[in-house]
Amino acid sequence: MDLRTPDPNPGWLSDDELSQVRRRMPILCVEAIPVRVDGLGKISEVGLLLRASPEGAMSRMLVTGRVMYGETVREALFRHLEKDLGPMAFPLLPTTPLPAQVAEYFPLPGMSPFTDERQHAVSLVFIVPVTGSCDPRQDALEITWLTPEDAVSDANMAEMEGGRGTLLRSALYGTGAL
Amino acid sequence: MDLRTPDPNPGWLSDDELSQVRRRMPILCVEAIPVRVDGLGKISEVGLLLRASPEGAMSRMLVTGRVMYGETVREALFRHLEKDLGPMAFPLLPTTPLPAQVAEYFPLPGMSPFTDERQHAVSLVFIVPVTGSCDPRQDALEITWLTPEDAVSDANMAEMEGGRGTLLRSALYGTGAL
Amino acid sequence: MDLRTPDPNPGWLSDDELSQVRRRMPILCVEAIPVRVDGLGKISEVGLLLRASPEGAMSRMLVTGRVMYGETVREALFRHLEKDLGPMAFPLLPTTPLPAQVAEYFPLPGMSPFTDERQHAVSLVFIVPVTGSCDPRQDALEITWLTPEDAVSDANMAEMEGGRGTLLRSALYGTGAL
Amino acid sequence: MDLRTPDPNPGWLSDDELSQVRRRMPILCVEAIPVRVDGLGKISEVGLLLRASPEGAMSRMLVTGRVMYGETVREALFRHLEKDLGPMAFPLLPTTPLPAQVAEYFPLPGMSPFTDERQHAVSLVFIVPVTGSCDPRQDALEITWLTPEDAVSDANMAEMEGGRGTLLRSALYGTGAL
Repeated sequence: MDLRTPDPNPGWLSDDELSQVRRRMPILCVEAIPVRVDGLGKISEVGLLLRASPEGAMSRMLVTGRVMYGETVREALFRHLEKDLGPMAFPLLPTTPLPAQVAEYFPLPGMSPFTDERQHAVSLVFIVPVTGSCDPRQDALEITWLTPEDAVSDANMAEMEGGRGTLLRSALYGTGAL
Repeated sequence: MDLRTPDPNPGWLSDDELSQVRRRMPILCVEAIPVRVDGLGKISEVGLLLRASPEGAMSRMLVTGRVMYGETVREALFRHLEKDLGPMAFPLLPTTPLPAQVAEYFPLPGMSPFTDERQHAVSLVFIVPVTGSCDPRQDALEITWLTPEDAVSDANMAEMEGGRGTLLRSALYGTGAL
Repeated sequence: MDLRTPDPNPGWLSDDELSQVRRRMPILCVEAIPVRVDGLGKISEVGLLLRASPEGAMSRMLVTGRVMYGETVREALFRHLEKDLGPMAFPLLPTTPLPAQVAEYFPLPGMSPFTDERQHAVSLVFIVPVTGSCDPRQDALEITWLTPEDAVSDANMAEMEGGRGTLLRSALYGTGAL
Repeated sequence: MDLRTPDPNPGWLSDDELSQVRRRMPILCVEAIPVRVDGLGKISEVGLLLRASPEGAMSRMLVTGRVMYGETVREALFRHLEKDLGPMAFPLLPTTPLPAQVAEYFPLPGMSPFTDERQHAVSLVFIVPVTGSCDPRQDALEITWLTPEDAVSDANMAEMEGGRGTLLRSALYGTGAL
């Protein structure tokens, strides 16, 4: 007899199922680069999340996560922004589902600039201005705001996992911020 | 002896010079589609300007104008938005100079979907969320907010000059708003 | 004892698994709009596939299909183009994984302009010039080449499933072909 | 009495007029990054032009030039590609006038990453696969084909004028070639 609370989202995958599917299908993700902009839309600061791995290693991250079944790309983006930056960040979501970049992560290096040992993930990457105050939750220790130049410094890029330093540099170049 | 007030922008063109250059060079313009968005960035309304021509004919317009010498695309976009929507519109300018569309206007029809009898103009078109209240100035009589569906209705598109109805439809399709 | 030939792609999903996953996760797809272009890159014709459903209903389709585990977006695009247009189509693949459009298909209407009753699919849509001769295989009966105007006629759009007429119109508008 | 041959393009500007207008209006340009691609559209090589300035200094350039009055962006792109790469380069022009990047060049540094001491220019930048053989004409001494990594090496970037090294790096990052 199963006494568990009914799954609130029966259409979604359990952790076990997810870990299986992750080795069988590309996983669709969204990724957000939180930025502060001036009145003309020019990027003045980039927000990077500081994360500690279970082993205690620190790394710098973007806002990222899966798109769930039945969820639009916009909804997924909003959900992950709220989860990572808190409810008072007031992100300005893009008017279009067309991303600034598409990043393809593979478990093994060499197929693309991006790796993710857990899965083959394809990530739609958006630059998202945030207008409120950020209060990182979950496993993020803090958010650091850096100038675009500092954000893509070699030191910072070395702390970003899976090639996300390259992704960040690429996205910022496209905006003229660098 | 020249008693005129010194030209505040000596690098810019007089009306006479402009009308000459307009027949000799493509003119770089920016164009903004003002929109209202919901919390997820989805377009709920599109703002169209109602204009009266010197002959009294009415037409529906987007925010549009030239990029001046020494001005960035962002600055031109901001200047024209402020001029057409007033200082309290609080537009959210794009983080990138990459436009949603490029529209090429020619004096004669047939070279592109877009015509402008005054000039050969190339317009970088942006979708710009506005968050404040709009108070059209200059020659615009009013701004009307329409649902995306109404904005691209055949009736409305017929009132837009130079193929801008096609431009609007194209840009809105790309956002998933239609 | 299992005498079957070993699965050549053990990382991929069986039909049963796929039909289950399709109701639990968004499926990443690619979609190609085959076009003929003139020497300046301007679209002169659009290729639509004619398909017969198992029930015998005819519909017009784009080239479309899933991205498999371990496959890049480019590889998936090439594989589906070859499968649907034959080995002599010589498609010119895009230099970037950034799509012309992102189409979100949901089983139920209302969440986006696009529906797919089998699944929640997110499709990266590319416009792909083909330079060779097309020889549709699989379940496609034939490929028809239409002018951009004819391709988005009301009659044709009514024959395209899942909102793909809207997608086609949107993508063609963005190129200035309409 | 004026005995000169009539100007074949009376709508275009003389050198004198051009040099005047260049200090009064932004000049619309196109810029092409010539590339070789593999069968999947992935960039394998980047073509850089070697130019000698009137003073004898060498620099590496992209294909670049103005859009003329009455000319589409596509036509300008084709004209400059043919002028710089010769008639047998067989470039594959983009299906859309939407550029990969927009680069704003100003006479003075600090307004953007890009400078051009002659003018304020706004450049629509395209990545253009070439399939034939290149035979640089005009003032280009030769075209060199480099891997994407070599093309954006610090040594090469230092030889590119006006910030075009940054532009190249930015455009290549967006394709996943780096």
